Amino acid sequence: MFKKFSKKVIPFAVVSSLAISVMVSGPALSSADPKKEDAKQIKNVIFLIGDGMGLSYTSAYRYMKDDPKTPVKEKTEFDKYFVGTQMTYPEDEHQNITDSASAATAMSAGVKTYNAAIAVDNDFTEVRTVLEAAKENGKSTGLVATSEITHATPAAYGAHDINRKNMDAIADDYFDELVNKKHKIDVLLGGGSSNFVRKDRNLTEEFKKAGYSYVTDRESMLKDTNNQILGLFAPGGLDKAIDRNEKTPSLQEMTKAAIQRLSKNKSGFFLMVEGSQIDWAGHDNDVVASMSEMADFEKAFKEAIDFAKQDGNTLVVATADHSTGGFSIGANGIYNFDVTPIKAAKRTPDFMAAEILGGASVEETLKKYIDLKLTNDEIKSVKDAAATKDQTKTDNAIEAIFDTRSNTGWTTGGHTGEDVPVYAFGPGKEKFAGLIDNTDNAKIIFNIIEGKNK
Amino acid sequence: MFKKFSKKVIPFAVVSSLAISVMVSGPALSSADPKKEDAKQIKNVIFLIGDGMGLSYTSAYRYMKDDPKTPVKEKTEFDKYFVGTQMTYPEDEHQNITDSASAATAMSAGVKTYNAAIAVDNDFTEVRTVLEAAKENGKSTGLVATSEITHATPAAYGAHDINRKNMDAIADDYFDELVNKKHKIDVLLGGGSSNFVRKDRNLTEEFKKAGYSYVTDRESMLKDTNNQILGLFAPGGLDKAIDRNEKTPSLQEMTKAAIQRLSKNKSGFFLMVEGSQIDWAGHDNDVVASMSEMADFEKAFKEAIDFAKQDGNTLVVATADHSTGGFSIGANGIYNFDVTPIKAAKRTPDFMAAEILGGASVEETLKKYIDLKLTNDEIKSVKDAAATKDQTKTDNAIEAIFDTRSNTGWTTGGHTGEDVPVYAFGPGKEKFAGLIDNTDNAKIIFNIIEGKNK
Repeated sequence: MFKKFSKKVIPFAVVSSLAISVMVSGPALSSADPKKEDAKQIKNVIFLIGDGMGLSYTSAYRYMKDDPKTPVKEKTEFDKYFVGTQMTYPEDEHQNITDSASAATAMSAGVKTYNAAIAVDNDFTEVRTVLEAAKENGKSTGLVATSEITHATPAAYGAHDINRKNMDAIADDYFDELVNKKHKIDVLLGGGSSNFVRKDRNLTEEFKKAGYSYVTDRESMLKDTNNQILGLFAPGGLDKAIDRNEKTPSLQEMTKAAIQRLSKNKSGFFLMVEGSQIDWAGHDNDVVASMSEMADFEKAFKEAIDFAKQDGNTLVVATADHSTGGFSIGANGIYNFDVTPIKAAKRTPDFMAAEILGGASVEETLKKYIDLKLTNDEIKSVKDAAATKDQTKTDNAIEAIFDTRSNTGWTTGGHTGEDVPVYAFGPGKEKFAGLIDNTDNAKIIFNIIEGKNK
Repeated sequence: MFKKFSKKVIPFAVVSSLAISVMVSGPALSSADPKKEDAKQIKNVIFLIGDGMGLSYTSAYRYMKDDPKTPVKEKTEFDKYFVGTQMTYPEDEHQNITDSASAATAMSAGVKTYNAAIAVDNDFTEVRTVLEAAKENGKSTGLVATSEITHATPAAYGAHDINRKNMDAIADDYFDELVNKKHKIDVLLGGGSSNFVRKDRNLTEEFKKAGYSYVTDRESMLKDTNNQILGLFAPGGLDKAIDRNEKTPSLQEMTKAAIQRLSKNKSGFFLMVEGSQIDWAGHDNDVVASMSEMADFEKAFKEAIDFAKQDGNTLVVATADHSTGGFSIGANGIYNFDVTPIKAAKRTPDFMAAEILGGASVEETLKKYIDLKLTNDEIKSVKDAAATKDQTKTDNAIEAIFDTRSNTGWTTGGHTGEDVPVYAFGPGKEKFAGLIDNTDNAKIIFNIIEGKNK
């Protein structure tokens, strides 16, 4: 909950009913929907967001997964369930390319809003989310991410704030905002312990007193059997998948841990899973990290699909909030995207740069973590950058090796405005087919949860 | 027909039957297709290719068409009929990003091949195209483009050559290759008269003797009523839409002229229409030209849709062969794609650069063709470039004004490898839904033309 209301304060219950009345309007939501039968079967919804995962990323990832021994490009897990694309533009006075907060609010609440908004509209009024609707309807709920669990995307499902930067207040919301007098999120797994363990408040203790397990490493998460759990595996975001050690769970493991708990509820569940750092890799223009994060996200998606196949009453949707970096498959006039150098990396350039600036030899570090014979010029470029003692410059010099060798292009450290892919499986999947708006995701899921299609 | 066969020569008829036997295999083509009823209704197929029209282009074009007075982004004509995306990768030993020839061969013949191949496979064997299948089945056929009509994309439907560069030989094929002893293409409209009127041969005369009308300007095309027509409106490609004068038809007008003629055949028709220069604008990294070409292509698409709506037995498909330029909506960290400067251009940068290098004043030329108050620095950057007397440098300097002001990004003068959008309307449209391969376009259309779905 945000502390200062700039315009007006509307009690949450009133906002909720206002929100509902908006949600159910619109041509896509007619009660004469021919897919009634499908809708009846949907008990659980797993909504996965690959942050920044534009079509260039999903296509590039297919090049990564290609078996060069066959003439075709093998399909990724995503490819098997592609149903369409969505528009991502925000409703922001100054920016027409969305940030993650505005896009997540569109997908969680069905409302276009300004960039930085966490489940509030352009009047700073709180808007009800599909996670809240699920809890109101007796379902279990969960949020899983590789960023801080209070970061923009999960926040827009489980909190309300005028600014995404208020991550402490967002953590407070996760505990303080009740639905039917109960905590509204049963499973919280990700990073960001620094927003929960603070001088002014220790939310981990409060969650424990309320009956939640609190875990901070992979092993403890896997051993725990409690239905309600808070797992925070880093002070901020988790390491990139390729840099993670055995103490940090994969996104797939967190997703599985969430599903195991939530699926015990006979009334069903809503789970949002974010591959948060595809976007961060894109902001950094780091093709190695982006593909590593894609792999992490793909495994989580498959975990959800596998559950849904067995369950039969689960809808799985995966999409992106926007694309990032102006990432292109091919650059500088060359018609070849060579994934060999990308696959040769055992760690991200950022990881290598940190080791180098921590005192490790440039040559030995590059040799240790890149399974390629680098040229003298390439090594020199990293040495020159490292001599400045600047992490960003050293990181950029290592990234440039991968970009140049793979023919990867970038145009921005920010987001881009093209439509993004949508994948769906299970009953109701056809509702997401074709070209949809990001707000449609929420509108469809509200209808499913509230039985408007019955 | 190409002159030298590097490997083996297979008579066309044999190739055809081989090709057919390949075509009808594969899971997507089962005779147990549940859409039998739809398939029966398809008499005509209009296949439109926006060359280079990746998802960034179609999304950017929506920004261009947006009415700022409304909170939503209005849908483009394309948006209304979006059904999915297609994979574009070629089967080329050295390049895994496609060129237009390989992609067009995939779409025309259902065969992955090397870059530069015009309806020949990796063994340099001719492969039968959907246009040829249409003619064999008694339908009328047409090719319309804004490039030379012998350029890679139309060529892969109506000719066979080991190299796209052999545009004279491709023009010969259009006349010489017969199907059932008749010329196989009834309507040819586009650019490229220099490939038809040559020292060694004047194909325009040969076409006329064979009963075709031959026209070289818009007015003559509009007045002509002959069923068979060759229209060549420029020695090479046509001017960009925004630069065209009244002597040159729009793509919509050429499309309409083609449909008027072809639709007289009670057995139906196959028409391929290419918005050729979306790609050329992308190669040039020219956002003004690309959006001008998108508008030209959209109107042609709408012409096809309008006919199909009235006709009821026409399938319309629009797609791209690949994306070009690494074009991004947003660049340099800025979350705003400002279309105002793009809309302010009355001519392409190339057109302005040519006038300047022809002796016109830099300041007056920019003022005449750009409805913006330019800064002194912007004017100086063009003056400095023009002082080199180099068309490319002068063009680039003018383009930079639009890129910087609009926040447009580019990564390459070549193509990129991400999936591209597919739009479809009419009976059979569902066959193109979801994620398809570029070869599926041909496979589906072969089945439609040959009644395999009946």
